[in-house]
Amino acid sequence: MKKLINRAEDVVRESLEGFAAAHADLIRVNFEPAYVARRDAPVNGKVGVVSGGGSGHEPLHSGYVGMGMLDAACPGSIFSSPTPDQMLEASKAVDGGAGILHIIKNYTGDQMNFEMAAELGRAEGLEIDSAVIDDDVAVTDSLYTAGRRGVGLTVLAEKITGAAAEERRSLKEVANICRQVNSWGRSMGMALTSCTVPHIGHPMFDLPENEMEIGIGIHGEPGRKRLPIQSADEITAMLMEPVIQDLPYRAGDRVLLFVNGMGGTPLSELYIVYRQALSIAKGHRLNVERSFVGSYITSLEMAGCSITLLKLDDTLIRLWDAPVKTPALRWGI
Amino acid sequence: MKKLINRAEDVVRESLEGFAAAHADLIRVNFEPAYVARRDAPVNGKVGVVSGGGSGHEPLHSGYVGMGMLDAACPGSIFSSPTPDQMLEASKAVDGGAGILHIIKNYTGDQMNFEMAAELGRAEGLEIDSAVIDDDVAVTDSLYTAGRRGVGLTVLAEKITGAAAEERRSLKEVANICRQVNSWGRSMGMALTSCTVPHIGHPMFDLPENEMEIGIGIHGEPGRKRLPIQSADEITAMLMEPVIQDLPYRAGDRVLLFVNGMGGTPLSELYIVYRQALSIAKGHRLNVERSFVGSYITSLEMAGCSITLLKLDDTLIRLWDAPVKTPALRWGI
Repeated sequence: MKKLINRAEDVVRESLEGFAAAHADLIRVNFEPAYVARRDAPVNGKVGVVSGGGSGHEPLHSGYVGMGMLDAACPGSIFSSPTPDQMLEASKAVDGGAGILHIIKNYTGDQMNFEMAAELGRAEGLEIDSAVIDDDVAVTDSLYTAGRRGVGLTVLAEKITGAAAEERRSLKEVANICRQVNSWGRSMGMALTSCTVPHIGHPMFDLPENEMEIGIGIHGEPGRKRLPIQSADEITAMLMEPVIQDLPYRAGDRVLLFVNGMGGTPLSELYIVYRQALSIAKGHRLNVERSFVGSYITSLEMAGCSITLLKLDDTLIRLWDAPVKTPALRWGI
Repeated sequence: MKKLINRAEDVVRESLEGFAAAHADLIRVNFEPAYVARRDAPVNGKVGVVSGGGSGHEPLHSGYVGMGMLDAACPGSIFSSPTPDQMLEASKAVDGGAGILHIIKNYTGDQMNFEMAAELGRAEGLEIDSAVIDDDVAVTDSLYTAGRRGVGLTVLAEKITGAAAEERRSLKEVANICRQVNSWGRSMGMALTSCTVPHIGHPMFDLPENEMEIGIGIHGEPGRKRLPIQSADEITAMLMEPVIQDLPYRAGDRVLLFVNGMGGTPLSELYIVYRQALSIAKGHRLNVERSFVGSYITSLEMAGCSITLLKLDDTLIRLWDAPVKTPALRWGI
């Protein structure tokens, strides 16, 4: 296992300590229980947007805490859900009096724990709503989910929902924007290599030198099929076509095209995938109005990529373009 | 070889095509000869800041083209210098009448070609100066250099020099700021794994499962020594101490601390390294006033990291903090 770590059991805490020190101008970190909050939280009169999930997907979610995106994020252990008390304490810490929205990737553990946190919070007088992200078209039901998995769309949902909250919209409106993003977005991913969870110490699965896994999740869980490695253009088509057919996206749709790296894939390769994804989108007469390329939701050091399409209207475009100031995503300010 | 590519000989061009399409709001790409320029270049009355080098280090250099940083970047083949005609045409394209500064990483090919481009440019009436980056304390002379290699400091130099040019300083002043950054900055890197150049098809070097290379360059060229893998804290000390001793940095110095990923290392691990690097810096009573953590100068999919220290004064801090708007680095605007 080749990793820049000390003891496996200290990875999440030590990484969070470094994160806290590096970004003290934007965020503050609570360690017991662990959550990251906007430095200026709670923001009076603003819906508090809270997400979280297993660690190992950095910069998701902690990297997206800050003005215009998340008010708080709860990091779990690697690839496993944070606990209800993390979510509860994070929610209380960012409650500005306008309610709290939980953005939940659709994994059984996350769902269960966020639900329990919401119940506990309501018992303490918090107003809490939730929105689920389940954009992965690769599989229905999976190793860790009932229904589809939440993957790349999560980043877009956190950005757009956070911008809606920043406009001081009501909890109901903010939740509905997030649900709209989820209903208009679809993703699919693939892996060239596996990844190793530090406290397990060996790769999550074996992937021979000449094979790839199409339809992979973000925890190394199985996808649709295993195939001999093909060209970037062929791989891109294998991801784009199911995504486009699923909603379906139709000629004339305005879309955001997001090519995401899984952690171990060079940025230069993501642009090769983007190039072909754009060409396929144009072939379907989709209007790609916004582009997003980089490693924004990862699986440790896994090599591979995912593609996300999000249908856009004027409101979603305005919210996507709105200023954001977080450790991992920053523009307009 | 597990890569998201089509034909090996098309990697640089196809990646550049995707880059051009994804960031058309910020940059424009010329393909014959290949260079990336600010969309609004030439900027009248501003020194044009031009860099470039082998591809495979993305987002360096093309990702740093835009307001407040580079006016143009010339991508060579993977790990090999761009040609003089690329540098010449890029320089002409961004000449706003205040002269051109070439920022050159200290590799023999880059030096020779930038020198030739400068001669050709002067023959055509351009005013061209140059500044060299050679911050790597690991080795004197190397496989590809006379003298030290240019590594992580390049990113900081491009940011700060670009900001100085944006202030409409003279060519002489802009060049001197870049030289000051070079004289005040030091770096050292290490690798856990090798990387594979597409047209070569096999790893640049072998690194057994239990070994690491300390003092690695950014092309897989040999470093100082090969050792059994140690903890992140021990590795961080092996990089920080030689860096601190070299300038040397002294108690009370104000510094920027930059922990860089080599491409295949998860962001979470970089924060573990940052955490210990900060602790060591504090142990030497350095005042870490700015922090920078991420994969900003890479070696394809190599796992590993580098650490850069840059001594700061009020001017360098103001230039570092100044607005920047490029595909890979953006803040304040």
